Amino acid sequence: MSTGEHCIGLGDVRAAAERVAPYVRQTPAVGSAALSELTGRMVVAKCETMQRTGSFKIRGATNAVQALGETEARRGVVTHSSGNHALALATAAGARGIPAHVVMPIDASEVKRRAVIAAGATVHGCGPTAAERAAACDAVARETGATVIPPYDHPIVIAGQGTVGLEIAEQVPEAATVVVPVGGGGLIGGIAVALRALRPGIRIIGAEPALADDAAESRRTGRIAPQRPPVSIADGLRAPLGALTFPLVRDLVDDIVVVDEGAIVDAMRFAFERAALVIEPSAAVGLAALASGRCGGDASRPAVVVLCGANVDLSRLPWLAEAR
Amino acid sequence: MSTGEHCIGLGDVRAAAERVAPYVRQTPAVGSAALSELTGRMVVAKCETMQRTGSFKIRGATNAVQALGETEARRGVVTHSSGNHALALATAAGARGIPAHVVMPIDASEVKRRAVIAAGATVHGCGPTAAERAAACDAVARETGATVIPPYDHPIVIAGQGTVGLEIAEQVPEAATVVVPVGGGGLIGGIAVALRALRPGIRIIGAEPALADDAAESRRTGRIAPQRPPVSIADGLRAPLGALTFPLVRDLVDDIVVVDEGAIVDAMRFAFERAALVIEPSAAVGLAALASGRCGGDASRPAVVVLCGANVDLSRLPWLAEAR
Repeated sequence: MSTGEHCIGLGDVRAAAERVAPYVRQTPAVGSAALSELTGRMVVAKCETMQRTGSFKIRGATNAVQALGETEARRGVVTHSSGNHALALATAAGARGIPAHVVMPIDASEVKRRAVIAAGATVHGCGPTAAERAAACDAVARETGATVIPPYDHPIVIAGQGTVGLEIAEQVPEAATVVVPVGGGGLIGGIAVALRALRPGIRIIGAEPALADDAAESRRTGRIAPQRPPVSIADGLRAPLGALTFPLVRDLVDDIVVVDEGAIVDAMRFAFERAALVIEPSAAVGLAALASGRCGGDASRPAVVVLCGANVDLSRLPWLAEAR
Repeated sequence: MSTGEHCIGLGDVRAAAERVAPYVRQTPAVGSAALSELTGRMVVAKCETMQRTGSFKIRGATNAVQALGETEARRGVVTHSSGNHALALATAAGARGIPAHVVMPIDASEVKRRAVIAAGATVHGCGPTAAERAAACDAVARETGATVIPPYDHPIVIAGQGTVGLEIAEQVPEAATVVVPVGGGGLIGGIAVALRALRPGIRIIGAEPALADDAAESRRTGRIAPQRPPVSIADGLRAPLGALTFPLVRDLVDDIVVVDEGAIVDAMRFAFERAALVIEPSAAVGLAALASGRCGGDASRPAVVVLCGANVDLSRLPWLAEAR
């Protein structure tokens, strides 16, 4: 491995931290006795659930929006994510007073659509396939001159997400292990760049649903594995690794721990009922990995789990579904 | 006012802290950016939601159980609360390996009954009125020799709840204001004893539902006002003040802020959706009081809100009721 293969370094994450500081929150790192009992070791929850827009995505989106030149910025930004990144980008653009466009499949949930519109973005409908979404996004970019801000595979976005790693290094300097859910790899990639530099001995673990275990396969085979069918309840983790995030996940991450759907729901339920924390299924994946006992690292020192987001439909909590 | 009128002092709270330390958690004090935005001042949430058994009640119950002599302890403990105190007492008794009896109305919720049984208590049915409950409790005490541990109006229980105040003094030494929901007055009474001694200038505010504003009336009239009809959603706050808690609330508390049911539900919803915190309606009362802007104190310094519990039926979140 050479850092020459990596799209960013610690300096980029530090620059991001300075750029986003006025717009994002330093989230609490909460020692949780309940989670410690669940996992058998001291657990600190890094609560991106309490981040503005309800997820870490505001970090990368804000870094991207604030880094735009004045002329570019005035033409706005566009993305075709329909999840947390869309809400984050709309919010980041609003903070700079520039237009945001979000391309969303016409069958996207009304809740998500309304949240993005409420944050000030213009929503553009498209067909449901990835190709249709990308085409619609490109069309909006051509028509409006807006800059495409991808959800994860871009150096400026990865550097923004990496600011979570800077905060962990400062808030939990004695951490032995950090567990990060893996979707497209922007969050774990950015965190790994920061922590590998600042805490070289820390164990960095990715957590993935068994139904979306493409990152684990990518590391095994040395090639980016394709996206799985979108069936895992952890809808934020379905994306494949990107050309930029893959080398980070390959070289800087110690292991990927894979968990099944039942373990994800159990961990989510435990967080709500026993730890009093609202988390989305993607965040529960990290917790389930930690609870599995397969994350490793000196168990006498804390393990940090990044609770990446809290955007969950409270009227459809998965363990209550059968009770209706 | 003379402290001679007060059933406990700082020394009792300190003794309680030592006694309960092996059995209860020091809960996190979480700076919440979302709650700060809601209230317009820096807010630190004292998360008794993350306490063992899901509420602060384990502190007083444990202090009571651990203070019993060996012979007394072997005969067990009994209470006729059906809420958080029952679960706490069952758990505290289990930790000492002694029997716990809980007298519950036959129409109590199955969820509460199951939780108490799971914690190891024997449940005794009774009629629904306060008189029937007290009579059934006395009967169990006579038959078994168990010691009655009341939910709040007892020095040992109040001292146990006061350990929350010791932790606040240590975790947020610069706090200007602390807001505590008021039911029977055990929690705010104990906290006030600790904080009035350790942080004399701090502003101590009780928070009450308008539909259960008996503590506010008690302070106005100088006499303990009767319990209101049990209609507030904040079911943990319906109890009247007791003979021991009333002097504490009268003398050591600066003001009681009263909030309506809509404000309680709004605050609870905000905590779930924007602050990623699971809270029960009683805890939302404190947050609603803070959001009302009527709690006072130097707004440039933090306000602490005691989130007293998280025991809420997630399948019946009040703002989702109409969606069903």
